[in-house]
This record gives sequence, structure tokens and C-alpha cells, in this order.
Amino acid sequence: MGRIICAGLGPGDPDLMSVKSDRAIRAAGHIAYFRKAGRAGQARRIVEGMIAPGAVEYPMEYPVTTEIPFDSPEYNRLLAAFYDDWAARLATLAETEEIVVLCEGDPFFYGSFMHLYIRLKDRVRIDVIPGITGMTGCWNVTGQPITWGDDVLSVLMGTLPEDELIAHASGSDALVIMKTGRNLPKVKRALAAAGRLGEAWLVERGTMPGQRIERLAQVEDHDCPYFAIVLVHGEGRRPVAAEAAE
Amino acid sequence: MGRIICAGLGPGDPDLMSVKSDRAIRAAGHIAYFRKAGRAGQARRIVEGMIAPGAVEYPMEYPVTTEIPFDSPEYNRLLAAFYDDWAARLATLAETEEIVVLCEGDPFFYGSFMHLYIRLKDRVRIDVIPGITGMTGCWNVTGQPITWGDDVLSVLMGTLPEDELIAHASGSDALVIMKTGRNLPKVKRALAAAGRLGEAWLVERGTMPGQRIERLAQVEDHDCPYFAIVLVHGEGRRPVAAEAAE
Ligand SMILES: C[S@@+](CC[C@H](N)C(=O)[O-])C[C@H]1O[C@@H](n2cnc3c(N)ncnc32)[C@H](O)[C@@H]1O
Ligand SMILES: C[S@@+](CC[C@H](N)C(=O)[O-])C[C@H]1O[C@@H](n2cnc3c(N)ncnc32)[C@H](O)[C@@H]1O
Repeated sequence: MGRIICAGLGPGDPDLMSVKSDRAIRAAGHIAYFRKAGRAGQARRIVEGMIAPGAVEYPMEYPVTTEIPFDSPEYNRLLAAFYDDWAARLATLAETEEIVVLCEGDPFFYGSFMHLYIRLKDRVRIDVIPGITGMTGCWNVTGQPITWGDDVLSVLMGTLPEDELIAHASGSDALVIMKTGRNLPKVKRALAAAGRLGEAWLVERGTMPGQRIERLAQVEDHDCPYFAIVLVHGEGRRPVAAEAAE
Repeated sequence: MGRIICAGLGPGDPDLMSVKSDRAIRAAGHIAYFRKAGRAGQARRIVEGMIAPGAVEYPMEYPVTTEIPFDSPEYNRLLAAFYDDWAARLATLAETEEIVVLCEGDPFFYGSFMHLYIRLKDRVRIDVIPGITGMTGCWNVTGQPITWGDDVLSVLMGTLPEDELIAHASGSDALVIMKTGRNLPKVKRALAAAGRLGEAWLVERGTMPGQRIERLAQVEDHDCPYFAIVLVHGEGRRPVAAEAAE
């Protein structure tokens, strides 16, 4: 009897992986990971140099990424078939082998692995190793705490409608906005409407080679990095000496 | 010239610490950590067995925890003096030594270290090592993804007024509520008012010895664990085969 181990990789810097994921990846004989067709794959790149010689690799290539609108029935159908197919293959392999599936950040936080997980969890033993989320890596590289005291933090996707982005941006102290890409002009408009654009940062490839940190207001509208997170830091309640508070 | 390294410890299981924090802690000659007076301290307990023989320890004991209301001027004054005092001591030590400060979860996410950080960052070299947040450890042990697709996640403190808890619980897909303790009856009322109590989980001491996972509705009102997190999982958008979707 084998099993599947899903190893959370953290935000990108291999040193930020957990001791447990590090150990699982170095010991793995079978390693699977998602990637765009024809690309090396972000997850695979993070573990470069860690994989044992002779380990078998299973790149799981998305059938579609942004060519078709993500809310179309066709996109849904293609992705469901892709997950069904890989779930079946991994289930067969896991009858006898231990397979490590790589997952950026934390596997249970907007991760692609979750789609395999719900298909497999009642048929195969699956162990999930948590990881530092991408957003945690990103707020750390800004060198500023994200939340204090009783700040409310909202995590939003750039794919949300503009009015929902505005409502949450107005009602929260700290903000994380993921899946920016083409949505970045909309995200900027929404933050401006909520009066938060001036405080917002863009972090691209946080903790990775090529990392970039910039004030969002300074980012041009045609500049829409996919692997980026928008952050607004909370200000919260903080104990300061009485004089300083006045 | 020394420096301060703040090592994020992750949610509690030492295996979930990053490779980088693990290495920094094992190599440390000076280790500081917060704790309640007269207690071993949660952070110190996580690193048990990892500290080098001969390392000097600096327990930073809170002058007050729940004896005084946290929004009183007296509480504020005592805490500010405590942080000022330790910031001065660590700054002096860091003139010549390297000191590792332990911090549960991620240091920049509602962490006590942040109060030392703002006092020291312009005087001393400080390197912060991110950690897996407590909430990430907690949603992982429930064995259920916390967010899918374009779910909105709100992170709330149990110390917030009831009406604010209700508003955010109604307007978000997934929820994390920290600092439960005495606030748990209020949190339960707020979730019930928002129609979310039935889906909520309580995770106490997630990933640690003594871990407990329970449906929040089943937790008695007099049972108010401090080191616990309340979770409501998002349901999100998921690609499923067309037949299954109907
Ligand atoms: C499908 S989500 C996966 C989230 C992942 N499971 C996690 O825990 O962070 C992909 C999004 O994560 C964000 N992201 C993750 N890691 C990042 C990093 N290191 N730098 C910038 N953005 C990152 C980007 O917004 C990207 O669109
Ligand atoms: C002052 S906050 C510190 C948060 C920490 N910096 C982090 O990243 O998780 C303390 C709160 O974190 C929550 N918490 C952190 N780790 C936890 C765990 N392993 N199990 C349950 N609750 C936890 C509890 O709600 C507690 O009241």
C-alpha cells in the first residue's frame, strides 16, 4: 500500500519550506507537479537540486490556462476531465508507491491540489504537509507587519467583480489581493474607489529570484504580472508610551 | 556588529518550522522569547530539544495578560514600558551578539515581536524569518481546504464588537477567528446571527500535543480555550464534470 504526500512548498525560497516537506521531497521516488504546457513549472523550479537521482517525475500539464474564459462551461469541462484523469493515474500508482505531489504555498489555500484531493481522499491515503502561504512570504518581504491588534484582514481574488472588491477594501483594515494578472487595472480602480490605493503595494515573485516590490499606484496599467500579490498593511492598535500617543 | 533574527516557529509542530528557522535556532547562542510570568512559554516549548548547550536564554515575561482590560490606559502603559525596556536590552546585546527571538506562527501576522520590531528596526539589523501561521496549521488539521476559486476569506479577532463580527461573517465565504478565549460565547452568537454557526469548527492547539478539533456548535459556553481558532471553510467555485454539477 502506497500513499500520496502533498508537500506545501512555501512562497518560493526553498529555505522557507518546512523541515517536513524538505525531508519528504529529498526522499521521494515519485514526484508529481502541475505546470503550464511547455513551461518548467514554478513548483518544479522551487525544488531544483533537491530531487534524488532516479526519481520519476510526473508533470501534470494544464489543458488550458487563460485561452478560454475561466467561467465558461468549456473551461470547466476541460479542467474537470484533467483532474479526473490525473486522480485516476495517481490512485493507480498509489496502490504500490509513495508519490509526493508538489504544491506552491499551502496546499489547502486556493491550491490546485485540492481538486485532486477531493477526488482521491476516500480512495487513497493522503498526507498533506502545510506550507507558508505566498501572501505570508510577500508581506514579510515588504518589511512591514500586515496586521496588528484587532485589525480585520480580507483575502480577495482579483477575479472578483469590481463592486465586491470595493466593498471589502472599504470594510477591512488589511488587504491581500491575489490572482492579479489582467485584473490589475480593475484592482487599482477598486482600491482607488475605496481610498486605499495610496497605501497599496505590489509584490511580484515574493522571496524568489526576480522579486519586485513596488507601490501599486506607480505600476503602469499595461504591466500585469500574474505571479504577484497586492497588499495593504493594517495599522491596528499598538501600545505606545502615553506621550507618543498624543 | 551583531543582529537580531526573529524566527517564525510555525503553528506548533517543530517539523513545520522552515528549514531556515530550524537552522537559526540550532545555531543560536542567545535566545529570547515572550511568555506569561511563571509559565514555560508556548514558543519555548516548541523548540524544546533544539537549543544548543550553553545558549543563553532571555524569557521576556509579560507584565500583565488578562488581569486588566486590554483597552485600558493602564494596560497600554504597562505594555509600552515592557516593550521599550526589552527593545533597549536587546539593542545593547545586539551591538556585539546575534540574538534569535522566537515567535509563534508568522512574526508579522498579529505577532508580539512586531512591537519590538518597530522600536528596533532603525537602530539594529533585524532579519525576520517567516513562519506558517497558526491558522494555516489549523485549517490543515481539519483535513478540508479553507478556500477555493474566488472565495473571500476574512480573518477576525474574537475581541471585535459583536456587530462587526456579524457583518464580516455575513459578507465572507471563509472565516478565521483568532483570540477566542473569553470571547467564544460572543463569537458563537455572532456566527449564529450570520447563519454560519452550523459550519464552524474550533481547533485548539492545532498541530501540537493536546490538539482538539470540534464542531463549534458542540462546544459548551463555559469552555473557552485561549489557544484556539474558529474556522468556517469556503465552498467556492470548482470544476466538476457537467453531470455532477447538476
Ligand atoms: C492559485 S493561487 C495559489 C496559492 C498558494 N496555494 C498559496 O498558499 O499561496 C496563485 C496565486 O498566488 C499568489 N502567489 C503565491 N505565491 C506568490 C509569491 N511568492 N509572490 C507573488 N504572488 C504569489 C499569486 O497571486 C498567484 O496568482
Ligand atoms: C497573538 S496571535 C499570534 C499569531 C501568530 N503570529 C500566527 O502567525 O499564528 C495568538 C492567537 O493565534 C491563534 N493560534 C496560533 N497558533 C495556533 C494553534 N496552533 N492552534 C490554535 N490557535 C492558534 C490563537 O487564536 C491565539 O489566540
